[in-house]
Amino acid sequence: MGGDFGPQAVVPAAALALEELGASAKFIFCGDEKKIAPLLDAHPALKAVSQIRHTEQVIANDEKPSAALRRKDSSMRLAIDAVKEGAAQSVVSAGNTGALMATAKLVFRCLPGVNRPAIASVIPTMQGETIMLDLGANLTCDAEMLAQFAVLGAVYARAVKGIANPTVGILNVGTEEVKGTDQVREAAAILSGIELPGKFAGFVEGDDIAKGTVDVVVTDGFTGNVALKVAEGVGKLTGHFLKEAFLSSLFAKLGALFASGALKRLKKRVDPRFYNGGMFLGLDGICVKSHGGMDSYGFSRAIIVAAHLVEQGYNKRVAEEIGHIMSKGALSAASATKQPESVA
Amino acid sequence: MGGDFGPQAVVPAAALALEELGASAKFIFCGDEKKIAPLLDAHPALKAVSQIRHTEQVIANDEKPSAALRRKDSSMRLAIDAVKEGAAQSVVSAGNTGALMATAKLVFRCLPGVNRPAIASVIPTMQGETIMLDLGANLTCDAEMLAQFAVLGAVYARAVKGIANPTVGILNVGTEEVKGTDQVREAAAILSGIELPGKFAGFVEGDDIAKGTVDVVVTDGFTGNVALKVAEGVGKLTGHFLKEAFLSSLFAKLGALFASGALKRLKKRVDPRFYNGGMFLGLDGICVKSHGGMDSYGFSRAIIVAAHLVEQGYNKRVAEEIGHIMSKGALSAASATKQPESVA
Repeated sequence: MGGDFGPQAVVPAAALALEELGASAKFIFCGDEKKIAPLLDAHPALKAVSQIRHTEQVIANDEKPSAALRRKDSSMRLAIDAVKEGAAQSVVSAGNTGALMATAKLVFRCLPGVNRPAIASVIPTMQGETIMLDLGANLTCDAEMLAQFAVLGAVYARAVKGIANPTVGILNVGTEEVKGTDQVREAAAILSGIELPGKFAGFVEGDDIAKGTVDVVVTDGFTGNVALKVAEGVGKLTGHFLKEAFLSSLFAKLGALFASGALKRLKKRVDPRFYNGGMFLGLDGICVKSHGGMDSYGFSRAIIVAAHLVEQGYNKRVAEEIGHIMSKGALSAASATKQPESVA
Repeated sequence: MGGDFGPQAVVPAAALALEELGASAKFIFCGDEKKIAPLLDAHPALKAVSQIRHTEQVIANDEKPSAALRRKDSSMRLAIDAVKEGAAQSVVSAGNTGALMATAKLVFRCLPGVNRPAIASVIPTMQGETIMLDLGANLTCDAEMLAQFAVLGAVYARAVKGIANPTVGILNVGTEEVKGTDQVREAAAILSGIELPGKFAGFVEGDDIAKGTVDVVVTDGFTGNVALKVAEGVGKLTGHFLKEAFLSSLFAKLGALFASGALKRLKKRVDPRFYNGGMFLGLDGICVKSHGGMDSYGFSRAIIVAAHLVEQGYNKRVAEEIGHIMSKGALSAASATKQPESVA
């Protein structure tokens, strides 16, 4: 029921995802049956593999996470409960991010050994794609949280993206060891001492994200959220400038006409809908957040993201890797010796 | 002597700036006379208004700020001293940022009432231009520092850019009052209670920077540095994708040919050299940092930035505004009641 378009986007999105995922995919739609059922009628193949769990309760976009937690019959809660009870393997929602995270945390709990979940997303780069986390679940992060995010990201790159030896960088204001806050320097010290599922590549800077310098970029939720939105904003700005340039003269218009095929392919390449799907990593259950403004194509991408996490057994592999590191005592030893934090 | 090209970029840059600033401009080059003098010979008009302060000592790019502070005969120090003693009104350097900030702080001191200097820069947006600060001078900032940066930025927008009633936003992960860290929420509370030289517009998000939602974006040095570099990175990535698109087919190449004039104007519009010049705001002396990789055109823009700060009496106006706010007790009252900070 969430997002700007509710079932109007979600049902056709599931139909698109079904085409890509094949007949083994099944769907449970949680929400108002009166709105969902007529939309399903338009997609017989989807209808054949779908159920509806009816509720008229919806979490509003401005509802506080604490209030949302008490609403046990909301569409969001029904969807999360469906995963918890094993009826579904993953939940995808375009609703209130804070409420979704709070509810998923309450119902799923963290994977053993993980202290905090993080929101992660895949972004296009010069080299292909990079995963960045956290994008807003934890506004401030201590060193151990950042180190755990590195593990969450590295397992994603290896298990889901198939990168055998993913590189992991911590976002910082410079690449030298002495640069940055206590938190990032201490996180770098922890990561230098543990066996990551991949390779710790030290610090990276803001422009390294688009360069694709590393496979995984780790940062706190405040910086990550700002960085992601800055990138979106600059992308839109460039598109706007480009459009203006192509309308600025007759020659430019002719040029745009000749290049229209290439420009269309370019637009597709940087289409934010293709990269839709914020993954809640570190929870004992798969949950993916779709951007609220997404149309059915965009929402279908978030469904695909969730399906890949399930297919590749992401959570099982995280639990193994975290268990492996914890058994060596590296993460906890590092955290035991760490200094009290300071923002001075 | 700083930056990737030293006097090879700096001397021609001064010649370019002289053309724009007119004959009242004068230059003092601090550094190795053997390298500077021959370059000046190629620019007679510049030579006529220039002096050289000779030294062979240079601050290396990897030198620690603390070490740089002890080097009283470095080219950087001579240039800063020239402002302190009144021989120059501003200093422009492409050298080691940390060393430049530390030395400028030591020699100039902060303006009365200002606790910490910030690095600010002007960036292109959908609406024109926005000033953003801090870009890396203070990695973590308490609420009062952020509130002071708001004043520094607003005075810049009013005095130098001529915006009568500049809008100021604090960068955050959401626009609602409850969003964000303690620091940003407390800074918003302070700014809602003082008379800013402009209008406090509340919180803005990462994509609001490129949108140009406000005239001044205030943030801590860690987030600001990352945001600026993310924007640079995405700008380059889009350029790269665009070039690939125009080379992808014969039609696309033809299109690029027809649109070449418009594309050149677009390139100029987003040219990072045009926006070169990190201003050290809040010091009792004007200091502008050029990006180390800038050519002579880029460095000339940093000189123009410094000249405008001098011409518009920026520092005097900041001192007046800060004094005005302090006399009302608003900033200090707010800081006296503030809670101890926490990163938990």
